[in-house]
Amino acid sequence: MGVIVQKFGGTSVANAERIHKACRRAIEARDRGNKVVVVVSAMGDTTDDLLDLAHDVCTFEDRAYNPPKRELDQLLATGEQVTIALMAMALHALGAPAISFTGGQIGLVTDDAFSKARIQSINHQRILDELNNGQIVIVAGFQGITPEGDFTTLGRGGSNATLVALGAVLNADVCENYTDVDGIYTADPRIVKNARKIDKISYDEMLELSSVGASVLQTRAVEFAKKYNVPIEVRNSQNNNPGTWIVAETPNMEHIVVSGVALKKELVRVLLKSVPDKPGVAANIFTTIASAKIVVDDIIQNTQEDNTANVSFTVERGDLADIKPIVEKLTKELGGNTQASYQDGLAKVSAVGVGMRTHTGVAERMFKALADAKVNIQNITTSEIKISCIISAEQGPLAVQAVHDAFGLEKAP
Amino acid sequence: MGVIVQKFGGTSVANAERIHKACRRAIEARDRGNKVVVVVSAMGDTTDDLLDLAHDVCTFEDRAYNPPKRELDQLLATGEQVTIALMAMALHALGAPAISFTGGQIGLVTDDAFSKARIQSINHQRILDELNNGQIVIVAGFQGITPEGDFTTLGRGGSNATLVALGAVLNADVCENYTDVDGIYTADPRIVKNARKIDKISYDEMLELSSVGASVLQTRAVEFAKKYNVPIEVRNSQNNNPGTWIVAETPNMEHIVVSGVALKKELVRVLLKSVPDKPGVAANIFTTIASAKIVVDDIIQNTQEDNTANVSFTVERGDLADIKPIVEKLTKELGGNTQASYQDGLAKVSAVGVGMRTHTGVAERMFKALADAKVNIQNITTSEIKISCIISAEQGPLAVQAVHDAFGLEKAP
Repeated sequence: MGVIVQKFGGTSVANAERIHKACRRAIEARDRGNKVVVVVSAMGDTTDDLLDLAHDVCTFEDRAYNPPKRELDQLLATGEQVTIALMAMALHALGAPAISFTGGQIGLVTDDAFSKARIQSINHQRILDELNNGQIVIVAGFQGITPEGDFTTLGRGGSNATLVALGAVLNADVCENYTDVDGIYTADPRIVKNARKIDKISYDEMLELSSVGASVLQTRAVEFAKKYNVPIEVRNSQNNNPGTWIVAETPNMEHIVVSGVALKKELVRVLLKSVPDKPGVAANIFTTIASAKIVVDDIIQNTQEDNTANVSFTVERGDLADIKPIVEKLTKELGGNTQASYQDGLAKVSAVGVGMRTHTGVAERMFKALADAKVNIQNITTSEIKISCIISAEQGPLAVQAVHDAFGLEKAP
Repeated sequence: MGVIVQKFGGTSVANAERIHKACRRAIEARDRGNKVVVVVSAMGDTTDDLLDLAHDVCTFEDRAYNPPKRELDQLLATGEQVTIALMAMALHALGAPAISFTGGQIGLVTDDAFSKARIQSINHQRILDELNNGQIVIVAGFQGITPEGDFTTLGRGGSNATLVALGAVLNADVCENYTDVDGIYTADPRIVKNARKIDKISYDEMLELSSVGASVLQTRAVEFAKKYNVPIEVRNSQNNNPGTWIVAETPNMEHIVVSGVALKKELVRVLLKSVPDKPGVAANIFTTIASAKIVVDDIIQNTQEDNTANVSFTVERGDLADIKPIVEKLTKELGGNTQASYQDGLAKVSAVGVGMRTHTGVAERMFKALADAKVNIQNITTSEIKISCIISAEQGPLAVQAVHDAFGLEKAP
């Protein structure tokens, strides 16, 4: 008797009808002889509605104040709690015994980094007890509790983190991630019309794709799945099409040179000019930024003749407001003639595939495709299975299509 | 430095503007040198909206199934959690440090009678710690947690139970109950136009008034306040009028013969005819009904010449569907010619006052007032400080006005 963990995102539980559909999937899985755990997100626009309420209540005389993050998490955690209760009720009405749990109720303990907390442990004994009692167990995604009992949320894609963490501690046969798309595509189908659904992809490829803009699964959830070797299937909750399996790498995956092309939009390059070129300066810069939990990428450092260096890196535009004061403070501390500037309107196109390890000429093919499409490359970074190029944001869609075409990704391998 | 516990009901926190008003009251109390705890209910119609969601999700092919009470409490507990978070955020925006707690977060432990749980204990150390840190503490009313960590709700008037329980454990100077009326009136102002707001009333009088139809404060909360001698002030959240103080009885309260007149509407009389007149039969009847948690009142038993008895009592009309099967089962078990019938359309008018203990002729004055108004009395019950008459429901308003006039309640004592 296996364990299946299913996750239904916000659109898949947006109303009673969709909750009923999700219930029927859980019952089907149970009827095939599995123990079933279901992770759910907040219904549809609930989270946005709660954020609107928070904004209203924090606005005085047309000035909106930022709410404390602890209280924001206290507020947002109610979204999933509503869904789990409704789902358990609907399952009861359908004759399937079910019980719901908040993050706190299954001892999903996190650190106290409110709004982006990390899972530290799960006390899964109560889940096991209820599964052994024949119950379908419904768990609130996206949320946990600190050791002191404060509610936390796990940040963007937090429900997927819950899905995979539960899959790991319950030693699940599969984590089924129900969403509003049929699976992982060779490129975003909204940009590349002939993008193709991928049947199977390795954790490492999925990690690289997630980190460079494929938004279906977040890096953190995939890292966790890889660490505990939990297979994930990404499926569409509104049809019965087979989805994309994310699994450990197998030798025959190397035949595929490029599995997917991703586009990361809304990047900003931060340039620090005339940084004193002393040992430890770069480390100091990036340690300071990392301690504010801002992700930087595409770092370039050029030493100048005057014994200074130019240091540049990219951040997501959403982090710009947070990083600016940090950068301004750093430039003051660095002293001398150090100056900061910001270049907006950038994007990054990336090709990912484990086949790059064994095939040659992949980078050249990508650069030629971009050149032929008259896309100017501003910077290149590579990993063992990824090539990324910084380009202008407005050429993003053109660049993705060109690379997709160059590797013939529209055809099944 | 005193402790004040304030409670704001659903209408007093129905939107951002009203939450801001409630915040300002809390800040005023703090600025007068008090430690302030605020108990809040779910915003406006939130609870009804959640019940609608539950109904939708439990309806299949036009048949609505009853949701399990555990899951219903899991759902409803989110209502107050939203309010506490918003209130804490608004206080922050106003520059007042504040922290919010769910019932579970302050260890408000209850039994597991979902939907009508009873408070067993409160671990108030964290509240004290935060008060000593200079925080205004916001607590979710109406909810608790079982020792196993399941969410519970405290039933009708549950937020008032939370208010008074916190007042007791924190040894508060006063529990301020903010509502949408100015206080407790000598009669319902919607029925009696010249009803007068009472300045001060004893716990016992309030208990009797609550039990016979005055709905501002529930019996349970008043019992608790009396037991721990916590003064309650009932006030209007939308103005600054002084409210009604509910306090321990003082000798000079006995000068007031009647403090208030209440009307309990929608009563049904249950009549059991030809009940075998054996010892223990009546006890059996009322034990059976009590075990279904249905409150009965106005019991009359008449022994007949044929060695049987007629037993009658009243129940609220809302309990009729629950009590009918119990009564039908009882009549079968009693055997013989026992028959049950139900008389709908009844009401009860009651006069309450601690002065009845020392003044004579109070009952006669009430009966004469009803007779002069041509109101037929079907049954009379009395306690030390209360006289109640069962009358027809349609004469209810007339009866209340007549008794109110007879004791001159429109004039200040």
